[in-house]
Amino acid sequence: MTKEASEIGLAMTALGRAARAASAELATSDRDQRDLALRSAAAALRSSEEKILEANKVDLSAARKSGMSSAMLDRLMLDHERIESMAAGLESIAALPDPVGRILAEWDRPNGLNIQRVAVPLGVIGIIYESRPNVTADAAALCLKSGNAVILRGGSDSFESSHAILECMRAGLEKANINVEAIQMVPTRDRTAVGYLLSSMASLVDVVVPRGGKNLIKRVQDEARVPVIGHLEGICHVYLHASADATIAREVVLNAKMRRTGICGAAETILVDADVAGQLLPDVCDALVDAGCEIRGDDEVVKIIPGATKATEEDWTTEYLDSIISIRIVDGIDAAIQHIAAYGSGHTESIIASDVAAAEYFLRSVDSAIVLHNASTQFADGGEFGMGAEIGIATGRVHARGPVGAEQLTSYKYVVRGAGQVRP
Amino acid sequence: MTKEASEIGLAMTALGRAARAASAELATSDRDQRDLALRSAAAALRSSEEKILEANKVDLSAARKSGMSSAMLDRLMLDHERIESMAAGLESIAALPDPVGRILAEWDRPNGLNIQRVAVPLGVIGIIYESRPNVTADAAALCLKSGNAVILRGGSDSFESSHAILECMRAGLEKANINVEAIQMVPTRDRTAVGYLLSSMASLVDVVVPRGGKNLIKRVQDEARVPVIGHLEGICHVYLHASADATIAREVVLNAKMRRTGICGAAETILVDADVAGQLLPDVCDALVDAGCEIRGDDEVVKIIPGATKATEEDWTTEYLDSIISIRIVDGIDAAIQHIAAYGSGHTESIIASDVAAAEYFLRSVDSAIVLHNASTQFADGGEFGMGAEIGIATGRVHARGPVGAEQLTSYKYVVRGAGQVRP
Repeated sequence: MTKEASEIGLAMTALGRAARAASAELATSDRDQRDLALRSAAAALRSSEEKILEANKVDLSAARKSGMSSAMLDRLMLDHERIESMAAGLESIAALPDPVGRILAEWDRPNGLNIQRVAVPLGVIGIIYESRPNVTADAAALCLKSGNAVILRGGSDSFESSHAILECMRAGLEKANINVEAIQMVPTRDRTAVGYLLSSMASLVDVVVPRGGKNLIKRVQDEARVPVIGHLEGICHVYLHASADATIAREVVLNAKMRRTGICGAAETILVDADVAGQLLPDVCDALVDAGCEIRGDDEVVKIIPGATKATEEDWTTEYLDSIISIRIVDGIDAAIQHIAAYGSGHTESIIASDVAAAEYFLRSVDSAIVLHNASTQFADGGEFGMGAEIGIATGRVHARGPVGAEQLTSYKYVVRGAGQVRP
Repeated sequence: MTKEASEIGLAMTALGRAARAASAELATSDRDQRDLALRSAAAALRSSEEKILEANKVDLSAARKSGMSSAMLDRLMLDHERIESMAAGLESIAALPDPVGRILAEWDRPNGLNIQRVAVPLGVIGIIYESRPNVTADAAALCLKSGNAVILRGGSDSFESSHAILECMRAGLEKANINVEAIQMVPTRDRTAVGYLLSSMASLVDVVVPRGGKNLIKRVQDEARVPVIGHLEGICHVYLHASADATIAREVVLNAKMRRTGICGAAETILVDADVAGQLLPDVCDALVDAGCEIRGDDEVVKIIPGATKATEEDWTTEYLDSIISIRIVDGIDAAIQHIAAYGSGHTESIIASDVAAAEYFLRSVDSAIVLHNASTQFADGGEFGMGAEIGIATGRVHARGPVGAEQLTSYKYVVRGAGQVRP
């Protein structure tokens, strides 16, 4: 190990220990205290706007020099509106019900023991994200709401912006008399620190949540020695069943693909029953093309849709995150389900059907985090689910699946009350 | 890689793929089919008693030759009673409520979307255990009940016995017309196979559950590239508060330590308030010593308890699993909580107190999977909790904590029903 690497290791261990100690204090804080911290952090964000924008300018200027794309520069950029939106986000998280202390189940045993399963914080959560600086506020707030200490590691491009936001979050903790060590940020751009967080801090970090693109998620899954709540890409499907209503088919496909193309719940592939492809597709594709979408289809689609280009095998496994859609004609519902099982990513799929029995069969058979009937895949979102905010959409099967909000950042314990019972 | 290692890799991949395919079939099986398989497997165990005992003799004879201790030989040994108990276990798991398809939560959104969170199987579960052959039946049954395919890897000492039991489980699957590949067993004693299961089969195995001693758990946690539901040792505490009822204190301590010393919920350390140590301890220790327990205590304990030897620092972190107990006098409830935080394993702790406010403070402040008031730590058991059966007691914080029964072997998905809604 180089001298720098070993120094980073020491710094990370110190930071992890501080987070662990703060998490023990947080676990006994009450919701009023945590919500006060969130509202005070919102106020600090508003009153520090100038300072945050200054820091953001430094990041933006460095990013421009390094040749960052305009789409990425837009993600990195902060302005008055985005800072206000972060602050309002913190206030809405403060207003959510307390996820800690919920009695998840309760029962009595024949021997008189009363058993409760009670929600408790997870402990210390590591969050690794990319260049959107607002994630700093969102992620820290969800962790705080659920009584967890957090170690944040944002993209190196947003280093200055994230640290300016961190100061506001910590100012909120101070106002509420909570140990500021409850919100930590990795103090270096050096990627060695991420490796250390993932692999050498198992006793100091309870779970890591990666939020970002394929490469980030893959690195985390390969290196992590701590539990991971991850999400892979969203290769989301809309399946048009033979019984689909034509208007719903058109409106849902258009929304699922084009409302926002860059989110993980955006549809990437349409499957359509052979029996109705000739009827439904022209109208659906007109709407897509009018909205600026490129169509790639199988041989049949290319025949009936003018301007459609031929899809390759690769198209079925591609998350375009762009105004491109792939369309495949399938021979009935089981073929659709098989296509999704073979090419999907287990994120979100929707069936458009008037036949309720067919829809229920699809909902039951498709093994994805979210399955919908007659609704847009773009509803795959914690806010749209009524969870208030989310850290991401989990596609793993362990712990949390689907939108990860404050409730999903809790564990539980069993509280057993007796009157001297012993086990026979 | 040696030729053998690469052959094991190929065999394990084939086995994983077969399990994955079977899990997709299982996911659409109904409870009647799965319960029939469990009852049929019970019948097969009973009718194959002779064959199982023959296989067990082979294991026992090899184990004796290798110098296995009599305690371990007892764990390995099967007889009529133990086979009957396995069969009855399968029947009681069949009688449990269906953990799959439970609606865990349901709500409507203002836009009319109906959202359900529905329990689904985890998928493919790897179970790594030691020499008790009955775990083969228990673990396979819990996985089957919850709609999961399973890859079993028992201790190499029980190789023949486990395979004989496997045949009965698979006979049950056949009777119920379920793909026999849903229950797999690693076909070699070679430990390379375990490494392969833990690290190279991430796309084929959804979660690994290690069930066994410290070394096994440590190996799994070090090598696993798949999610793990593990349990560490159970260094369980009973804390005698100043308000403890003397009879409850004596009876609970005696039961918590001596009912069975070899289970993870057995108490290893007693903490007692300084104010009442002189009153409570002589009676408690008399009962323990009468039952054959050795007492190790701090300086104060050694003064008041004749025959007690001096505990060392190591005693506070030792899971004796034997008729030995360590006793420490503490200066009030916070000192007790601090001792548990410093030396405990997050498994199970009990407070004996008549003061309800003190008890509630303890239950809230102690961060263990199970916390009890006025009850024995030996209740830390899925059966005693009314879960029917368990695969172990999880001390991790992610996914499941405490007893892991059939319900804990499920994930969930969101089912969203709409009428053409699109996201604004």
